[in-house]
Amino acid sequence: MRVSFVGAGLQTRRRAPIVVQSEDDELIEIVGTETAPPKGLLEQVRYQWSNNWKSAVQRSDVDAIVVCTPPHLHAEITIAALDAGKHVLCEKPLCRSMQEAEAMVAAARKANRVLKCGFNHRHHPAILEARKRFERGDFGRPIVARCRYGICGRPGYENEWRADPNRAAGGQLAEQGTHAVDLFRWFLGDLVEVSCMTSIGYFSKQSLEDNGVALFRSAAGAMAMLHSSLTQWKNLFSFELIGEDGYFEVEGLGASYGTERLILGKRDFNAPFQDHIIEYRGGDSSWQSEWREFKQAIAGNRKPLGSDLDGLEAVRLTLAAYQAEQSKSVVQIGSGLQYTRQ
Amino acid sequence: MRVSFVGAGLQTRRRAPIVVQSEDDELIEIVGTETAPPKGLLEQVRYQWSNNWKSAVQRSDVDAIVVCTPPHLHAEITIAALDAGKHVLCEKPLCRSMQEAEAMVAAARKANRVLKCGFNHRHHPAILEARKRFERGDFGRPIVARCRYGICGRPGYENEWRADPNRAAGGQLAEQGTHAVDLFRWFLGDLVEVSCMTSIGYFSKQSLEDNGVALFRSAAGAMAMLHSSLTQWKNLFSFELIGEDGYFEVEGLGASYGTERLILGKRDFNAPFQDHIIEYRGGDSSWQSEWREFKQAIAGNRKPLGSDLDGLEAVRLTLAAYQAEQSKSVVQIGSGLQYTRQ
Amino acid sequence: MRVSFVGAGLQTRRRAPIVVQSEDDELIEIVGTETAPPKGLLEQVRYQWSNNWKSAVQRSDVDAIVVCTPPHLHAEITIAALDAGKHVLCEKPLCRSMQEAEAMVAAARKANRVLKCGFNHRHHPAILEARKRFERGDFGRPIVARCRYGICGRPGYENEWRADPNRAAGGQLAEQGTHAVDLFRWFLGDLVEVSCMTSIGYFSKQSLEDNGVALFRSAAGAMAMLHSSLTQWKNLFSFELIGEDGYFEVEGLGASYGTERLILGKRDFNAPFQDHIIEYRGGDSSWQSEWREFKQAIAGNRKPLGSDLDGLEAVRLTLAAYQAEQSKSVVQIGSGLQYTRQ
Amino acid sequence: MRVSFVGAGLQTRRRAPIVVQSEDDELIEIVGTETAPPKGLLEQVRYQWSNNWKSAVQRSDVDAIVVCTPPHLHAEITIAALDAGKHVLCEKPLCRSMQEAEAMVAAARKANRVLKCGFNHRHHPAILEARKRFERGDFGRPIVARCRYGICGRPGYENEWRADPNRAAGGQLAEQGTHAVDLFRWFLGDLVEVSCMTSIGYFSKQSLEDNGVALFRSAAGAMAMLHSSLTQWKNLFSFELIGEDGYFEVEGLGASYGTERLILGKRDFNAPFQDHIIEYRGGDSSWQSEWREFKQAIAGNRKPLGSDLDGLEAVRLTLAAYQAEQSKSVVQIGSGLQYTRQ
Repeated sequence: MRVSFVGAGLQTRRRAPIVVQSEDDELIEIVGTETAPPKGLLEQVRYQWSNNWKSAVQRSDVDAIVVCTPPHLHAEITIAALDAGKHVLCEKPLCRSMQEAEAMVAAARKANRVLKCGFNHRHHPAILEARKRFERGDFGRPIVARCRYGICGRPGYENEWRADPNRAAGGQLAEQGTHAVDLFRWFLGDLVEVSCMTSIGYFSKQSLEDNGVALFRSAAGAMAMLHSSLTQWKNLFSFELIGEDGYFEVEGLGASYGTERLILGKRDFNAPFQDHIIEYRGGDSSWQSEWREFKQAIAGNRKPLGSDLDGLEAVRLTLAAYQAEQSKSVVQIGSGLQYTRQ
Repeated sequence: MRVSFVGAGLQTRRRAPIVVQSEDDELIEIVGTETAPPKGLLEQVRYQWSNNWKSAVQRSDVDAIVVCTPPHLHAEITIAALDAGKHVLCEKPLCRSMQEAEAMVAAARKANRVLKCGFNHRHHPAILEARKRFERGDFGRPIVARCRYGICGRPGYENEWRADPNRAAGGQLAEQGTHAVDLFRWFLGDLVEVSCMTSIGYFSKQSLEDNGVALFRSAAGAMAMLHSSLTQWKNLFSFELIGEDGYFEVEGLGASYGTERLILGKRDFNAPFQDHIIEYRGGDSSWQSEWREFKQAIAGNRKPLGSDLDGLEAVRLTLAAYQAEQSKSVVQIGSGLQYTRQ
Repeated sequence: MRVSFVGAGLQTRRRAPIVVQSEDDELIEIVGTETAPPKGLLEQVRYQWSNNWKSAVQRSDVDAIVVCTPPHLHAEITIAALDAGKHVLCEKPLCRSMQEAEAMVAAARKANRVLKCGFNHRHHPAILEARKRFERGDFGRPIVARCRYGICGRPGYENEWRADPNRAAGGQLAEQGTHAVDLFRWFLGDLVEVSCMTSIGYFSKQSLEDNGVALFRSAAGAMAMLHSSLTQWKNLFSFELIGEDGYFEVEGLGASYGTERLILGKRDFNAPFQDHIIEYRGGDSSWQSEWREFKQAIAGNRKPLGSDLDGLEAVRLTLAAYQAEQSKSVVQIGSGLQYTRQ
Repeated sequence: MRVSFVGAGLQTRRRAPIVVQSEDDELIEIVGTETAPPKGLLEQVRYQWSNNWKSAVQRSDVDAIVVCTPPHLHAEITIAALDAGKHVLCEKPLCRSMQEAEAMVAAARKANRVLKCGFNHRHHPAILEARKRFERGDFGRPIVARCRYGICGRPGYENEWRADPNRAAGGQLAEQGTHAVDLFRWFLGDLVEVSCMTSIGYFSKQSLEDNGVALFRSAAGAMAMLHSSLTQWKNLFSFELIGEDGYFEVEGLGASYGTERLILGKRDFNAPFQDHIIEYRGGDSSWQSEWREFKQAIAGNRKPLGSDLDGLEAVRLTLAAYQAEQSKSVVQIGSGLQYTRQ
């Protein structure tokens, strides 16, 4: 597959090497904002560089576009690429409003192209293994889920695009929390109630929250609890699910989050506590796994894991959480989605 | 000190041996509901047994009463004991309503006796050490706290007094969660907002929740997140606080919660992640430490750590959480406390 | 069973409460060296006290003697008790020489009484569970075992009986290491070669080693590696066995060694690393379990787990290790045991 | 620096990318045994390929040679490269005999070029940090060190060069154990006694040991204990040092050994156990760090960390260990090194 990237930041540095190392794929172009690529960006590799995404998404020698820009540009670029007949992998959060989300989903439908939201967490091996076991019933009906997801911010964070309300989709609740919200939906099904609090606890020069906590209730009555933080001074990812028959925890995501581990256990009133622990040592394989799934969805002409609709639903839930925070109430989440759910 | 116990269940089995082993103290009487002590209750030890708490709290040869009954009896017994001039250590939750709480506090004030609420978690060595470091400023201004507190219920749980709304103070949110609420208050100060969800996830024959989640906001703007669970199939206690300068986690409480550990860290943007871990191996020392504090408060004629007023405030917060759940809103917690706070 | 203890130190404090709490047993007498029991020794419990072990072991109202003295007295007291028709549980190491060991074994045989060596480690739940799985073949043929067993010594250690070559059976290699040696034998079978080094690394006022390392080879060709240390500043017990099909580690012993855990794994060349972990939270149950086994062996008129012969073999191996150290060679361990092995 | 590699296997795949990504360095040539590079070897990168190491080490446009062949070729290639005026980084073990080692050291001296032995473990961040603290006296005089270093072998391992006594420097004791031996020397100083046992526990079609255990004593009286294993079914690296004042453990090496952690503690008879833990999350940085050191040693015309003499001493110790195994004795290690030690 011939692939171009729009955006030349961290996510492109993560995702483009997958394309470079793949025998089936070719990296055609990277589009940034400068006239030359930034230092250290794939220096030994041959690819083209431009600062004109509009022509990049029109090129006839390109099959797919990966959108790694800040969120305020996601919708425009993605829709243009879809309209030009390209498949698109768009970084999360999918976009910043339901209007944008619905337009993106509509464009993918009209173009009959795959639009995947960059929910790479679904592709982490521990999550995938947990999902497999979930589907075969190992945990039973879900009772409650917890996600603690935090990263240590950086000095000067306030000057990054992530701290700019005109470019970001929200604060830390939207930025990292969207992964948790997507995972909650995946394991608990539709979420119908949300309560939320946010705060600016440390990075006080910015207007977006650096911490957000939220409670969700699913249509089936399960509860979920989220903390998304930019002041977790030691990076942490922990996603836990307790079902009537057992539980799992995914801890770590590789790299700066530490070794990814899947901790599994069964309800047993009569035995000492015991866990089964699977360790996924080495680097973070989710980017590779996600890329493979994207290509398989294209090949199979089907919705990918972490689809445009999943992206849309996560936007809806994030907006509902912010609304709950503002209205100091528990928000009931309507089903006003015009597209058929998966 | 000459001490009698009202109640002959688990908590008396935990607390009475402390008195027996103390050189300064004497176990006078244990009051139960039967005509003879249950099997296995301090069989080699000399003490008196009765099933009449009313005369037990009147005895002139007793200095202090430990109330280890179900919550619906706390107020009546405690007030009678205080009126009879006894010091009282009353199990948590202090009671079941603000009316009861205020009457208990008033009785202690009138009798000029010490009334301590059995918040033994404040006396866990890891919590005490964290508090010492908190007070000297190691963590800076608190930003957010999290408590995950869960226990594996038992078959037949529905038939215990804890599952009986006429005797318990509430479900798992009130029962175990009250410790977390007390610790949140201790570290974050007054809590002014609460949001809450509860569910019956597994023990479906009971009407009280087996899981409760809640969000709190402090007067100073910090947030706290609680999950109290009876379906944590592997017992867990984790209390985390993130401040602007550092963090701590207390994990484990000894015994069935695993080795108690205090994990400490500092914010450091420029170094690899690092923790300082203190392990409190061996048994749960909190009961002993709490007993010592109770006696020192009596000797010093001062409020104990985990006072009657702390007990009252925890009742208020628990009731507010239930109200938030029912009204599907964020409840603002009034300051309607008629007694001066500590 | 009517039981008396000879010795009034740490081990009696650990073992006597088991007898006290047992419905079937009665604590008759404790024998020490003073005219009154030391402070804190079972103060609320009724028992007799003397400083005359010779008459204590003759009493007709006693069924069993527990010998908790320093090792130099083990043989004499044990043999006297056996000759008087008592069953004996003798602390480890069984004794200080092969002559003593053989005399003790002979006395038990002649009296037809149970003599158990206090190898409580065989009774730790994680060890027992590992053994059960070992016997059913989970690990396959053993390849190698490792034991790291260390404790943090105390200031003034040099003045204790353990540091006195006239009373102890050896230094740290003999003292704690004897448990490891016994476990190696249990899992690997007969050990036929040993190499050893010892040192006085910290407690320099004593003549006995505070650290010992040793290598063993079993008759079947498996290897074992031991470090027994008095300078493990953070107490550690780790016993690992690697077999051709899988492995286990027992880590912790409860109490000051931390939560006892059994870590289990299988050889699998094609899957991510995974462990199954069983946690034995709460206190150290080995003393209780060992006591039960002692009584069952008496009831069944059979050799107990951790028998006199096991004690004898551990003495032989320890002496061979010291001989290897002195001769700077690998010592071949003869089978000169005159009693039939189990 | 202009660099060529001899060898095209795993170690070249690890080390060559460091050169490629370095702004200061240029990858000139890789020399293998085939006429074209193996699949997947730096496919997007420009470099020359040959199967003639003799001319490769003579090229005038090359400054340094990295020798990543099996051990039986190390000496010949290294000496030829040094004679041609190249600096050499030679993989461990440096070579297979003392004669080879002394010839290599002599060649480096004569050519006045840097010869570094690929002891990358010295460059692991946790080891470096431990060394820094060791040098400033944090641990006091060393008492004992332990290294457990094991890897899960592969099906078909018997057919690899590592299992071939004509190419390898020995079995698992020499192969991985050489790192441990080098670290023991670094922290304990000269080692003067060794005892050893080896076995073929699983990979029975090969004649080289798959497990080796050894005891060492240093000139200063410290002891060290090593297990190097090819049947550690879950990869493990643990290097522990106990000194009179404190201890450290390095656990993990990144990648398949799990997150690299440095665990630090002080002797404290009067406090609860506590550790300070530094985590080096993310990938294995040792290769990069070692490369930097190699270049700095060249720039400074000095011996590198992990020098040719360190490589020589590790060969001597490994050979002494094998001799101890064969002679069933404790071997005294002579000081017959003709070159001045560092």
